[in-house]
Amino acid sequence: MDKLVSLCKRRGFIFQSSEIYGGTGSVWDYGPLGVELKKNIKDRWWNAMVRSRDDIEGLDAAILMHPRTWEASGHVAGFVDPLVDCKTCKGRFRADKLEDARCPQKPSKQPGQHDACQLTEARNFNLMFKTYMGALEESASIVYLRPETAQGIFVNFLNVQQSMRQKVPFGIAQIGKAFRNEITPGNFIFRTREFEQMEMQFFVEPGTDMEWFEQWKQLRMEWHLALGLSPERLKFHQHGAGELAHYARAAFDVTFDFGGTLGFQEIEGVHNRGDFDLTQHQQYSSKKLEYYDQLNNKRYVPYVIETSVGADRVTLAALVNAYREESVEGEDEGRVVLGLHRSIAPIKAAIFPLTKKDGQPEMAKNIMNDLRMAFPMDYDESGSIGKRYRRQDEVGTPFCITVDGQSTTDQTVTVRDRDTLAQDRVDVSQLKGYLAAKLVG
Amino acid sequence: MDKLVSLCKRRGFIFQSSEIYGGTGSVWDYGPLGVELKKNIKDRWWNAMVRSRDDIEGLDAAILMHPRTWEASGHVAGFVDPLVDCKTCKGRFRADKLEDARCPQKPSKQPGQHDACQLTEARNFNLMFKTYMGALEESASIVYLRPETAQGIFVNFLNVQQSMRQKVPFGIAQIGKAFRNEITPGNFIFRTREFEQMEMQFFVEPGTDMEWFEQWKQLRMEWHLALGLSPERLKFHQHGAGELAHYARAAFDVTFDFGGTLGFQEIEGVHNRGDFDLTQHQQYSSKKLEYYDQLNNKRYVPYVIETSVGADRVTLAALVNAYREESVEGEDEGRVVLGLHRSIAPIKAAIFPLTKKDGQPEMAKNIMNDLRMAFPMDYDESGSIGKRYRRQDEVGTPFCITVDGQSTTDQTVTVRDRDTLAQDRVDVSQLKGYLAAKLVG
Repeated sequence: MDKLVSLCKRRGFIFQSSEIYGGTGSVWDYGPLGVELKKNIKDRWWNAMVRSRDDIEGLDAAILMHPRTWEASGHVAGFVDPLVDCKTCKGRFRADKLEDARCPQKPSKQPGQHDACQLTEARNFNLMFKTYMGALEESASIVYLRPETAQGIFVNFLNVQQSMRQKVPFGIAQIGKAFRNEITPGNFIFRTREFEQMEMQFFVEPGTDMEWFEQWKQLRMEWHLALGLSPERLKFHQHGAGELAHYARAAFDVTFDFGGTLGFQEIEGVHNRGDFDLTQHQQYSSKKLEYYDQLNNKRYVPYVIETSVGADRVTLAALVNAYREESVEGEDEGRVVLGLHRSIAPIKAAIFPLTKKDGQPEMAKNIMNDLRMAFPMDYDESGSIGKRYRRQDEVGTPFCITVDGQSTTDQTVTVRDRDTLAQDRVDVSQLKGYLAAKLVG
Repeated sequence: MDKLVSLCKRRGFIFQSSEIYGGTGSVWDYGPLGVELKKNIKDRWWNAMVRSRDDIEGLDAAILMHPRTWEASGHVAGFVDPLVDCKTCKGRFRADKLEDARCPQKPSKQPGQHDACQLTEARNFNLMFKTYMGALEESASIVYLRPETAQGIFVNFLNVQQSMRQKVPFGIAQIGKAFRNEITPGNFIFRTREFEQMEMQFFVEPGTDMEWFEQWKQLRMEWHLALGLSPERLKFHQHGAGELAHYARAAFDVTFDFGGTLGFQEIEGVHNRGDFDLTQHQQYSSKKLEYYDQLNNKRYVPYVIETSVGADRVTLAALVNAYREESVEGEDEGRVVLGLHRSIAPIKAAIFPLTKKDGQPEMAKNIMNDLRMAFPMDYDESGSIGKRYRRQDEVGTPFCITVDGQSTTDQTVTVRDRDTLAQDRVDVSQLKGYLAAKLVG
């Protein structure tokens, strides 16, 4: 993980937020390559969930919602961590994770050793960020930064259903930021205070819910596999009776093996939420949130199957999954490769003139300008070809195109594959089609 | 505007946020068609600013930044509105906009009539939303919701320049949410408390700044024109000496004529910010933010040309610009058309079977499935063809494809153009190419 964090900073994937000021606690900025990688992942999700289906509609609800939303959802009362303070060492710990916490006065001691500590009773600490809207700081003007995007979907259930003339079963999908004032965040972009969710709520007739639950469980696992995550690093984790949230009728996590001390961790949750959310919002808003089934002339509050995935966690999983160090035949130094799925690689192809003369740079730039609106490209003319290959391998560029002495006479270039290292000689006129065919999926 | 707001809700473009709870003050949600429209506008900007240029890099910095950022930028001290309270009517007004405010005890009176009011001295009210990070609500843990994305770019200047090996002049571009606790927001999505910016900061050598300023001014106006905004609704507004922000050396707004009482209003600002921001961050962070020009062996703090556009404002401008009511020859009822630029229309083509039998629905669905990954599509089989055309006109769908009796025998369909109403008969095998050619740009 340390090597990956260092690579991410050095090569413009992910920077510490406000680094020049010493950073913001567990908040990260996406650099030029990171923003493209994450955007590609988000677009893949949007295409799979919204654009390729008739039965799912998109939504982009605001971060600041009416505060009653969070009373109805249970977050005001229940979205809390129990905290204890120590009167001796002044430490503040999660009461349920004392065994992982180190005493701040004896940091060299093992976690969990609090023998000299005088711990207070546990108090509940709400994880929602709170702020005030309007000119007065008073309880009537409290608003929260949403801790999840899901509620924006529930309160818009009828707006979307009616404006789009949808029939149950159908879903609403959304990508957006959410915020949690975690006491113990960490592990790079795995657990952060500001993060991005990709959530979909699928509204179904009660009684058909477990069937849909099974279907979404399978579909979501297939999506992660199609993203190139290794099958042996992915597995389901079923929530047992003790783990299950109070609103959930059934829940499975898709977990990914991040390796090291982190191991298998949740990257997505698939939940059968029943009618908990819509019923709560009905009660708190006094507005009916029922669906009218015209064909069978009946009204009901639909059940909800939710798929909730962290965009940052999937990005981290894709990076961890892709990172490899290899020895190269005939060379002393090895290479670092990000073997990212081609569809999410931030740069699709790099183009190099072999030398800086004989019209090679001009030809290379012309080719780049011809291809760049179809594929994000990079141009590099500095250093040896070997060095330029290494630079691109390290950021996951699937193809490197070289313009050499032969190119300017016969209008062909070499295309080198990141993974197989095989080189093809390709006609410049065929290049766009050649790359397009290899980049699909 | 009222008609547009109503259309936006009814057809799934824009809903009031948390509507079932009576709404959140000046915050809006984008519905299924609105999210696609805004995404298309954002992608157009990203392609023009980042993907098609070598000299601009993308970034996605976090909303929560280190609080010293906002001391350095001047927002903690200076991002304020002067407010006065009335001891009689308990109203709270902006001291500089008293003439627009109505007395809450006499709402039927004209704005600006405060004859019975006892106004307090004006006090400064900061427009940044404030919250606390970590477990303690104390001044040391204050963080703000960013009121602009620009500062995320300035603090990352060297991270981006070095990781991407960029040379001045170059730019950094970012799309993201920002928040301002406005006292008098309004006009639908024109001025909202939560909004999305598309900002680009271009770093140049001092002395070359006015040249670059002129270039960006022209380029940005061309972008709005290429989006289909009418030339007669667009004009520049130059900031006079009195209007100019303290950090600005020159500033022009791109203004758009929203019509009605709103008239010409800013949709984008192009600013020459000099070295104000980088110099301030150097001072507050004690970190050098200089550029080293290797070729000429000199170091300097670059000047910044900024282009800052509101994604929501451009979306509103595109909607206002597109909305028209027309009479239709030979029909009693007219039609409402959203004449959106084809590249940003949320649905590119709708497909209708003329009747629900003779294999027409099946053929129509097959065509849709073949086209939908290339173009967002809609399928509609309910009501008369005329009604279905009207539905699509109203949401700006450029093309309507009809499968009729002839289609199932000769594999052709009709394609009707939203604006000219002309109908072409097109071979199904040619359909993708036909649409692609008409949808470019």
